[in-house]
Amino acid sequence: MPLLDQVRSDYFDFLRFPTVSADPARLPSLRDCAAWLAEKFGAMGMEAEIAATPGAPVVLAKWSQPGGGQRRRVLIYGHYDVQPAEREDGWTGDPFEPRLKGGMVVARGSTDNKGQIFAHMLGVAEAIKEGGAATDVVFVVEGEEEVGSDNLEAVLKARKKDLRCDVAVISDTNMAGPDQPTLTYGLRGIAALEVDLTGPSHDLHSGVYGGAVVNPIKVLTQLLAGLHDDHSRVTVPGFYKKVRKPAAWERKAAKDLGVSDGEVRRQAGSPALGGEPGYTAIERIGMRPTAEINGITGGYQGPGPKTVLPSKASAKLTFRLVPHQDPAEIAGLVEKYLQKKCPKTVKMKITRHHGGLPYFCDPKKDFGPAAVRALRQAWDGKKVHYLLEGGTIPIVSVIRKVLGVETLLVGLSLPDCRAHGPDETFPIAYLERGARMNRALLHEISKS
Amino acid sequence: MPLLDQVRSDYFDFLRFPTVSADPARLPSLRDCAAWLAEKFGAMGMEAEIAATPGAPVVLAKWSQPGGGQRRRVLIYGHYDVQPAEREDGWTGDPFEPRLKGGMVVARGSTDNKGQIFAHMLGVAEAIKEGGAATDVVFVVEGEEEVGSDNLEAVLKARKKDLRCDVAVISDTNMAGPDQPTLTYGLRGIAALEVDLTGPSHDLHSGVYGGAVVNPIKVLTQLLAGLHDDHSRVTVPGFYKKVRKPAAWERKAAKDLGVSDGEVRRQAGSPALGGEPGYTAIERIGMRPTAEINGITGGYQGPGPKTVLPSKASAKLTFRLVPHQDPAEIAGLVEKYLQKKCPKTVKMKITRHHGGLPYFCDPKKDFGPAAVRALRQAWDGKKVHYLLEGGTIPIVSVIRKVLGVETLLVGLSLPDCRAHGPDETFPIAYLERGARMNRALLHEISKS
Repeated sequence: MPLLDQVRSDYFDFLRFPTVSADPARLPSLRDCAAWLAEKFGAMGMEAEIAATPGAPVVLAKWSQPGGGQRRRVLIYGHYDVQPAEREDGWTGDPFEPRLKGGMVVARGSTDNKGQIFAHMLGVAEAIKEGGAATDVVFVVEGEEEVGSDNLEAVLKARKKDLRCDVAVISDTNMAGPDQPTLTYGLRGIAALEVDLTGPSHDLHSGVYGGAVVNPIKVLTQLLAGLHDDHSRVTVPGFYKKVRKPAAWERKAAKDLGVSDGEVRRQAGSPALGGEPGYTAIERIGMRPTAEINGITGGYQGPGPKTVLPSKASAKLTFRLVPHQDPAEIAGLVEKYLQKKCPKTVKMKITRHHGGLPYFCDPKKDFGPAAVRALRQAWDGKKVHYLLEGGTIPIVSVIRKVLGVETLLVGLSLPDCRAHGPDETFPIAYLERGARMNRALLHEISKS
Repeated sequence: MPLLDQVRSDYFDFLRFPTVSADPARLPSLRDCAAWLAEKFGAMGMEAEIAATPGAPVVLAKWSQPGGGQRRRVLIYGHYDVQPAEREDGWTGDPFEPRLKGGMVVARGSTDNKGQIFAHMLGVAEAIKEGGAATDVVFVVEGEEEVGSDNLEAVLKARKKDLRCDVAVISDTNMAGPDQPTLTYGLRGIAALEVDLTGPSHDLHSGVYGGAVVNPIKVLTQLLAGLHDDHSRVTVPGFYKKVRKPAAWERKAAKDLGVSDGEVRRQAGSPALGGEPGYTAIERIGMRPTAEINGITGGYQGPGPKTVLPSKASAKLTFRLVPHQDPAEIAGLVEKYLQKKCPKTVKMKITRHHGGLPYFCDPKKDFGPAAVRALRQAWDGKKVHYLLEGGTIPIVSVIRKVLGVETLLVGLSLPDCRAHGPDETFPIAYLERGARMNRALLHEISKS
């Protein structure tokens, strides 16, 4: 098989594993995918290992130049788990049967994160084949990123010696646009929780009881509507207390990205944008925290009407955080706020899901300039952008804490790759481009 | 087979048809059930007929005393369709496989309305067998009551001559309590609509777009939370304009029912009641209009978290109305209110479902006293209660309009029969009790 066909075939095999970490029923698929990855790393000439956890395993793979002595060592992190995906969410085909459409690969995980980590694997595989990578390398590919990386910290701690490195590299962020190389120097954090309300002990006839028995959906809409004021600011007391004010150069860099509010609106396909006054869309996404309702459910949802006064209503919430907000503290403030506002007509249960710290790392220091040079080379001299990403990669804070190194965020995803949405895509050409970037980056790091 | 076993066997067969009128896929079951009913009426010695409609058919059955001359004629109305029911709604067994449990029959439709119309069929069957009913009788049993009886009016109009009568009788309401015979003299009406919001054109990553793109669930919670003020009053302008003020004797009759707020709370299994100040629970249910959210849905609802900013959110709403509110007018006011409040960040689509007029009929006039005497006889001399029902039976207003007669509402259902909820029940003994009531009622009407 020609090399390019083999690469595509391997990438498609990778995408076919339905590695939805949020669904416990998918654990066998996650395990199969980890075994598949370990085999690939082995075939590359790396020393691969599967580290078991109480959940999905972590795949580790290392390579050192034989007799290389004291060299730079780079940790490359990625994840093989993906967000949930069902045909009825709006996919035009099976989310786990990849298709190539106009140069774009359509499949769940194509960009987040299988495509991006696979590009790094290609770069290292090529380098080893041609005599060796510019630095020693260790890959850490986990299977629980989409549900909070709960078990990764323990693995990093247990293998701390094996994983010692000078810097970490992650491609799990967006570029400013197609062929606009981008260094992401900050990420938002996250606090996630679920609110379950129970009113009557069973579903009631809304005619027979309506007006006297309080509907938990009504209470839920009131509690959730109260989370924002008329200026789209979050009303939870203390929420903004620790929010970092961006420097002037950061607001200029945000403007230099050239992503207008109209462009964000176009990508989202939204009738009109909203959000806090005084910020552009790109600033709201990068520099400001949010309260988001990711899901809501209650009562009858089938065809036609049903005159029911339901027993239960619930919602899934996430709060995106910026430095120096703390996920546990924010979850506590939200919980306190909701408990205080909740009327006695319903019982409330709050479940905390994963949290992740926000991240900020000065791009003008340490290995930042090396990353900028590598990005420029890989994209044939194009200007490199500086970005504050709205998403969360909790692991960067864990890497800083456990391994004591910073992370270079050199994403290969595009803003309209629909990560987490239906018909997620990745440009097939970025596999090769990403491999080039990987080799340039290891080379620049080796010289820094 | 002994007679009682035969009765139970027939009743259970009736309950086994999954006649969910809200689900278009169930239409064949509705047609089968109508054919089954027509056969039963025929076996009783009545002239039965199935009247086709664009939806579920209407079963008609008439009987006249041979050579009876000028006699009273009574129309008995019921419905063979039921509310949706799925195991996962909280049923302890198959909703369409009836079970007898401590004297109660558990099945969807056991009380609403299959059990109650079946009791009238038993009464008339017995009377015909013993030489003839006290009045001429015509049954009208439809299959679209739970979705608004859209096609019934046309059938009544087309068969107006066949259906001429002195009064109509319906058992599709609650008794005040077990063995407390009750005449219902009013019903709430209903206006139903669905609100669908679309924000972004596809589901987005809540990290990548959150803060700039407005979440349609957020907008929906704000719109719905705004439907009530802090005193549980509906905020839609003009909503209360035509609401009838109850007379002093009605508030006394409501009190005489002896249903305390605590009892309503116990039936509902609710932590605490709510509603408009200045009214008891039973008054809020009978005399006051409501705005109810019967269902809400949007975003991710599976296990665990998902960081999605969804494209769509929607809700099903019903408004319970009292005299002299008009369903079309109220639906119009609500639509206008929501359109005005809806921000430009989402697209709103409002779909109107069925409407039903509220009903009020003075129980001291016309055939009211005959009904009270019959109820007293059937329940061995017990005091008869006067009730304002919170539910809706749109057909009573149609009967008044098309046939020019009032309706006696002599329900056999109990407040905790869980009509519309999971594990709906009906006391098996009320089949016989209802048959007695039917015979006493026809007898009293024949003398009035």
